[in-house]
Amino acid sequence: MKLTILGCYAATPRTITNPTSQVLEIKNRLFLIDCGEGTQVQLRKNKIKFSKINHIFISHLHGDHFFGLIGTISTFALLGRTTDLHIYGPKGVKEIIMLQLKLSNSWTTYELFFHELESNESQIIFEDSKVVVKTIPLKHRVYTNGFLFEEKLGERKLNVDAVQHYDIHTAYYQKIKNGGDITLEDGTVIENEKVSFDPIPPLSYAFCSDTAYHEAILPIIKNVDVLYHEATFLQSEEALAQKTLHSTAIEAATIALKANAKQLVLGHYSTRYEGIERFKEEAKTIFPNVLLADDGSSFEF
Amino acid sequence: MKLTILGCYAATPRTITNPTSQVLEIKNRLFLIDCGEGTQVQLRKNKIKFSKINHIFISHLHGDHFFGLIGTISTFALLGRTTDLHIYGPKGVKEIIMLQLKLSNSWTTYELFFHELESNESQIIFEDSKVVVKTIPLKHRVYTNGFLFEEKLGERKLNVDAVQHYDIHTAYYQKIKNGGDITLEDGTVIENEKVSFDPIPPLSYAFCSDTAYHEAILPIIKNVDVLYHEATFLQSEEALAQKTLHSTAIEAATIALKANAKQLVLGHYSTRYEGIERFKEEAKTIFPNVLLADDGSSFEF
Repeated sequence: MKLTILGCYAATPRTITNPTSQVLEIKNRLFLIDCGEGTQVQLRKNKIKFSKINHIFISHLHGDHFFGLIGTISTFALLGRTTDLHIYGPKGVKEIIMLQLKLSNSWTTYELFFHELESNESQIIFEDSKVVVKTIPLKHRVYTNGFLFEEKLGERKLNVDAVQHYDIHTAYYQKIKNGGDITLEDGTVIENEKVSFDPIPPLSYAFCSDTAYHEAILPIIKNVDVLYHEATFLQSEEALAQKTLHSTAIEAATIALKANAKQLVLGHYSTRYEGIERFKEEAKTIFPNVLLADDGSSFEF
Repeated sequence: MKLTILGCYAATPRTITNPTSQVLEIKNRLFLIDCGEGTQVQLRKNKIKFSKINHIFISHLHGDHFFGLIGTISTFALLGRTTDLHIYGPKGVKEIIMLQLKLSNSWTTYELFFHELESNESQIIFEDSKVVVKTIPLKHRVYTNGFLFEEKLGERKLNVDAVQHYDIHTAYYQKIKNGGDITLEDGTVIENEKVSFDPIPPLSYAFCSDTAYHEAILPIIKNVDVLYHEATFLQSEEALAQKTLHSTAIEAATIALKANAKQLVLGHYSTRYEGIERFKEEAKTIFPNVLLADDGSSFEF
């Protein structure tokens, strides 16, 4: 599982920082999460192939999370893309995109599917053979969802020495990987655990931005491997965080602790601060495993 | 008169080139012309103060000319701007901007005035004491206007030696600057030309992008000082220019020649070419005074 940060600063883009966008590679699928202005250029800078992105998740309709979406969609069309593209985002995102395509008399060369969200309950919005994506309803000034990406439990691993020991025919290997017991020709039943190992534990990633401190998300993200949680402010601006429905680094760390997350990644820093090290320092007073997102950084889990 | 090119490449933004946007400084007024994605960051890079921009002109609603507008408007609001902002552009631009502001529940801190255009005749869309702006209806795949910026003729210059020679009282200086004759106490009439010089000739700038070769614009831009004309293609792609309603460098130069322009500035280059020198070479076979726009370049006239 690999996370590439295209942008992780709040509010306006600047010459040195970019608004929110990130790419999650999980089980060989690439998911683009949020799409602030300039995202398509950040994708180019980070050498992420446009053609590998088939699903874009938009948390909410504040500009620093979606003003780059129309440009990304248009560029995909100008480059002659033919593969379907799926957009998941708040109700209204379709109207914004379609209005701009209509007025520019520019249609996509590919099928564009909108999955508009308006539920306040967590729901599955994407599922295939290897990955499930669920919404995480957040608490912000407009309707906002985080997203939980979960690998599905994979096949059991064949215990090569054991299957040879019992002289099991290769025709039964898939049955073993699926968790089945094996009956030998003499009638002996070999329990699955004797000829296989547990699958690699599936990983999970939760993206939570933008949001106030919101304990209602804890049951959804319980035991998550990696939690990206916004930390717009330091403790000194706690009152401002409350007023604007954003979080402090300490609040992000508290959510990580209570959710029993393994790893916390902080982002969505206000541009009022010089440097971001203090976000880590404050968060670590609550929760030990803290990473700082920064534009262009990537993390493998 | 100073022209700063924020971006001058066609179609998609890339890591090294930007879509169309430019700033014209004329008679101490700053006009932003077109606003492709990333314009606000280009404004920062070129150290142009946001607060000095009160008028934004949008030629047409293709993405590479206006996808940066909503971000620019939003950033002005986030920074607490209070001065009025005027947007001039095709009918529909207001709906696009207002829909996005509505869905993000974000309103501007300043008054936003839309001047929507739908006429196919040239019209005056801005006028104050020193500058007039007129539309230049262009020929493109969607409704498109160029813009003609004209300085108004200034006051006549006082001939200091002559007014001292005739011993004219300072109370009459403004009358002389306004072009009036002076009657001395002895009844002698002094003709204005004897005590004043002609004003500095007013300058004019025509922005024409995007457009096919279109001679109908010639009467509007006749004798213009500086003509910015799109040159998306080289002669080798002449057929593609015709098909897409863009121009070649030679067509841009032909318009400059027939309009009796003093200076041609080329831009809106297709990104298919390596380097832009050949645009100048081809244009110069028709018209001598050719400058190449490039991102970050600026020209004083």
